[in-house]
Amino acid sequence: MTSPNIASWTINGLVTAPVTPFNENGNVNFDLFDSYAGQIKDHGIKNLFVNGTTGEALSMTVDERKSVAEKWMEVGKSRFEKIIVHVGTGNYMESMQLAKHAESIGADGIACVAPSYLIPLRMEDYVNYIAKVASAAPNTAFFLYDINFLTGINLSVTEFFKKAKSQIPTLKGLKHTSPQLDSIHRVLTDHPDMIMMMGTNDLFLEGLVLGCKTTICDSFLGHVLSNTKEAFDKGDVGRARACQKRALDLMTVRRQMELTVPGGSKAILRCLGLAVGQPRLPVAPMTESEENLLKEFLKEIGFFEWYMEKLQ
Amino acid sequence: MTSPNIASWTINGLVTAPVTPFNENGNVNFDLFDSYAGQIKDHGIKNLFVNGTTGEALSMTVDERKSVAEKWMEVGKSRFEKIIVHVGTGNYMESMQLAKHAESIGADGIACVAPSYLIPLRMEDYVNYIAKVASAAPNTAFFLYDINFLTGINLSVTEFFKKAKSQIPTLKGLKHTSPQLDSIHRVLTDHPDMIMMMGTNDLFLEGLVLGCKTTICDSFLGHVLSNTKEAFDKGDVGRARACQKRALDLMTVRRQMELTVPGGSKAILRCLGLAVGQPRLPVAPMTESEENLLKEFLKEIGFFEWYMEKLQ
Amino acid sequence: MTSPNIASWTINGLVTAPVTPFNENGNVNFDLFDSYAGQIKDHGIKNLFVNGTTGEALSMTVDERKSVAEKWMEVGKSRFEKIIVHVGTGNYMESMQLAKHAESIGADGIACVAPSYLIPLRMEDYVNYIAKVASAAPNTAFFLYDINFLTGINLSVTEFFKKAKSQIPTLKGLKHTSPQLDSIHRVLTDHPDMIMMMGTNDLFLEGLVLGCKTTICDSFLGHVLSNTKEAFDKGDVGRARACQKRALDLMTVRRQMELTVPGGSKAILRCLGLAVGQPRLPVAPMTESEENLLKEFLKEIGFFEWYMEKLQ
Amino acid sequence: MTSPNIASWTINGLVTAPVTPFNENGNVNFDLFDSYAGQIKDHGIKNLFVNGTTGEALSMTVDERKSVAEKWMEVGKSRFEKIIVHVGTGNYMESMQLAKHAESIGADGIACVAPSYLIPLRMEDYVNYIAKVASAAPNTAFFLYDINFLTGINLSVTEFFKKAKSQIPTLKGLKHTSPQLDSIHRVLTDHPDMIMMMGTNDLFLEGLVLGCKTTICDSFLGHVLSNTKEAFDKGDVGRARACQKRALDLMTVRRQMELTVPGGSKAILRCLGLAVGQPRLPVAPMTESEENLLKEFLKEIGFFEWYMEKLQ
Repeated sequence: MTSPNIASWTINGLVTAPVTPFNENGNVNFDLFDSYAGQIKDHGIKNLFVNGTTGEALSMTVDERKSVAEKWMEVGKSRFEKIIVHVGTGNYMESMQLAKHAESIGADGIACVAPSYLIPLRMEDYVNYIAKVASAAPNTAFFLYDINFLTGINLSVTEFFKKAKSQIPTLKGLKHTSPQLDSIHRVLTDHPDMIMMMGTNDLFLEGLVLGCKTTICDSFLGHVLSNTKEAFDKGDVGRARACQKRALDLMTVRRQMELTVPGGSKAILRCLGLAVGQPRLPVAPMTESEENLLKEFLKEIGFFEWYMEKLQ
Repeated sequence: MTSPNIASWTINGLVTAPVTPFNENGNVNFDLFDSYAGQIKDHGIKNLFVNGTTGEALSMTVDERKSVAEKWMEVGKSRFEKIIVHVGTGNYMESMQLAKHAESIGADGIACVAPSYLIPLRMEDYVNYIAKVASAAPNTAFFLYDINFLTGINLSVTEFFKKAKSQIPTLKGLKHTSPQLDSIHRVLTDHPDMIMMMGTNDLFLEGLVLGCKTTICDSFLGHVLSNTKEAFDKGDVGRARACQKRALDLMTVRRQMELTVPGGSKAILRCLGLAVGQPRLPVAPMTESEENLLKEFLKEIGFFEWYMEKLQ
Repeated sequence: MTSPNIASWTINGLVTAPVTPFNENGNVNFDLFDSYAGQIKDHGIKNLFVNGTTGEALSMTVDERKSVAEKWMEVGKSRFEKIIVHVGTGNYMESMQLAKHAESIGADGIACVAPSYLIPLRMEDYVNYIAKVASAAPNTAFFLYDINFLTGINLSVTEFFKKAKSQIPTLKGLKHTSPQLDSIHRVLTDHPDMIMMMGTNDLFLEGLVLGCKTTICDSFLGHVLSNTKEAFDKGDVGRARACQKRALDLMTVRRQMELTVPGGSKAILRCLGLAVGQPRLPVAPMTESEENLLKEFLKEIGFFEWYMEKLQ
Repeated sequence: MTSPNIASWTINGLVTAPVTPFNENGNVNFDLFDSYAGQIKDHGIKNLFVNGTTGEALSMTVDERKSVAEKWMEVGKSRFEKIIVHVGTGNYMESMQLAKHAESIGADGIACVAPSYLIPLRMEDYVNYIAKVASAAPNTAFFLYDINFLTGINLSVTEFFKKAKSQIPTLKGLKHTSPQLDSIHRVLTDHPDMIMMMGTNDLFLEGLVLGCKTTICDSFLGHVLSNTKEAFDKGDVGRARACQKRALDLMTVRRQMELTVPGGSKAILRCLGLAVGQPRLPVAPMTESEENLLKEFLKEIGFFEWYMEKLQ
């Protein structure tokens, strides 16, 4: 039976997936977490999704991930409403360890992506895998993390929920990081009891019109996407489009420079003055001249003017 | 210079891409067009997009396509507001012939998809190819047809418009048949002078929230999608979702049975009593038992009850 | 029943898929065929595969393809042992016309690729489609043309032959233009009565070790690949590798410059002094500076020295 | 400088990538390693490649992988000529730990695949990543493991070696598990000082004709592939084809039943009486009825007769 606190679990406001700051030696820079958490809050973000793709979770050891999760709990507990810890790895052994640990440190939720090397090919194996991981944190709200263009998993998410709900009592919803909007529309109408979070910077308006609760985005898009939602909620669709267009302009710059998910987010944070360091290999580090070019592009689209603007 | 009638060209209401009826010998069944056109109108459709993917255009010879376009003009002129003729083939020679012909018979617009075998790899070649085709119908509104999952073309559509607008004076917009919603958001904000038509059955609401004018759909979804738009325009997003969910349910059935674009549309029309025949090879024909199974699935989702329902 | 001349049909020596020369207006340059045929013969090629991918067949109209096939018969009949006419188009109507025409002008064989837009998804539709085309030339040896990375067809070729042999009395073999070597190994052992022709410039040695009869290549690789086969037949595998490595070096240059199949072949022929013109859009034409760069690359790999070398 | 024992490092005879036996609880079944090692030797295998894809390395924790490597050293040291330990994980931190451990237990070689989630997009990042891992075992021969259809990495392997040789003094060669034969041909001619090992069951003959030294295969194909090589070395290509065709027949059965790499290998070993257990989720376990069906298919292709046959 689902525990009452999971049954009533909900989330309000935007979520960010923070990067993991590294120092010059490539080790986690724990000193930066506190000021980074402050900056995130200033960007209008209400919740955290830690150790995600942007956080380079899969580039870290299990022990590092535990320490990073603990640190976010420490600096974030008082600042944020919900802290969700992502526990996806290449196998259920390590993901179960991380899930158990997340529950032990009081995470508000956990999320898990399936492996990307030997991927599940049948729905029942997918559900059984995820259920195994969720079972290691029996008192914590659980979210499936679907990012099919990175994992290669092409199983129907709405079918997943149909089968998984009875098997995973803690199941609360989905982080949907995929271009397939029809897929999320199916999930939203078939499973109104589940909480749907978009997982991209640039499809929030489409998610909102279909009924998504929030989006998990880069923190420096906090105001842009809060404004998008506010305009949409007021019925001002034109303004909502204009707000989200800014996020699209930023994505266009990232594509022009062929930036990766964690590499691009780190580079933009560095442009904003936060010493988050370079990503771990094999993700490309950025040279100084590339960083200067990025700054130019960001200036051209007006990023430094509008990223802190709040809707009046 | 753009002619005044192209400058003021617009489109209202839904568009359908009709199938091409074939008889038992696999030849075009011209006798059926009149009653089919009547049924389309009854489904609440205001405009036609003929010789499209659903119309099996690429399975027909150039001469057949001309005859089919003429027949649709004959039976459709008095019934529909706009008739757009699709002229995409494997090469510009044939597409230019078809574009010229479409203009000569008074088509309200033409559209063209690029080849799918030797595809354009550079933007300039893409624009030059499409411009060549458009130049054969210098007085007719022109639309790019982007269906990247069938063609494999991965060039930015908003870049296409940026470069093509000065080169193609008749350019009026896009048929967007791709799952990438961020792409259409870019086009819509960068090129507000262009008319954007979604080209799918199941992403209309997402298109509407971004500012698309209409969608090109199967005729039997005419009421479902009109209702979606009506609800959206009234600000009743919940109802809009519920309306579009019906189109999604139909797509789910089509996927379960692994139906192709033209094969599935023809089969459903046959289930509705219209003798449109089987698709041409190599598209799979449907056996009687498969057709009976399809009917069962359609009954299960309530299709026969709701496909004619108009929003009150 | 298979006619005796089809039953005894065989092929010896290399095959080339010639380009189609175009003049400055983009029309077929029939004046060049005679000297081009002479050059092909000088390159050690014994047979032709006309109107293939390299020949930009799908960029031409049906009438143009008929004229080009006739021209190759005229200039090639006395020079070459076998002339195979490729008849693949976007649909069976046009392919049947072309097959009938090829037989009427005395082609030694015909070949056909399936459509690339609405592709066959089931084996029976694939076989039925190809059988329909073959039936239009009931007295001419027939070859399936499998080029799966362009068509997207992922059906087993050995299964195709298993089902098609009883249905297509003229079936004689395969043009295999795919990186899957296991697939051709299956076909070769399952169907020893069929003639297998590799369809690439750079996998001939692998094809030979599996039992392929010949390869269909660019004419300017005629000596290089004849040498490869001669060395392999003599048991000098080391020399065979070294010979084929030259073809690989040429492919590396083509990839570095991102040349297309027909565009690259035409450019190299122009570098060899043959005025074959530019490819038709949307295939990229080549600027003068690109052509100069190509010449530099060709010099670097020694192409102009070794392309005419015959094994002693 | 490369140490003398690495400079003279070589490998003879076939290599197998063993599965990792699990017991009913899903834990490593260390009791089975000794008898399994004996069976491998009986199958004509001379070397081991442990903790590979078939060994479900990425489904295990770092600690489990260390224990498994130690166990293989224990039971394999006296039986096999070379034991290569694969150390690829999702990140360099863990791979460095495993590389260091492998060297400490006396592994004859190590191999590493790059991550499959956040993959290297630029050659220099790829080389730097792999170099970092190799540096943790400075006295052990090192192999790149390229399995591009699982990782999605599309960087040129021959370019990798060009750049990596000066950076990785221990670099000795490649495990090539990709369908691209032209790629391995380039590597073999450009880098004759490197040792090339095919990594598939069904492309050994093609690898041999290009100059590969050996193949890393399933142990139950040991005799089949030894026979293939023996026939090829004697110049009896026809027999070599017939031998390898058996491996292809086995692959056809695996595809028909949609078996995964580790799942299929484990299932066939169970059919041969070895209690290796089921694979870990999300790889599909096999039901009893599926296993019976597999046995039927294996009987049909004669597997139980020919898998132990040695060439006379």
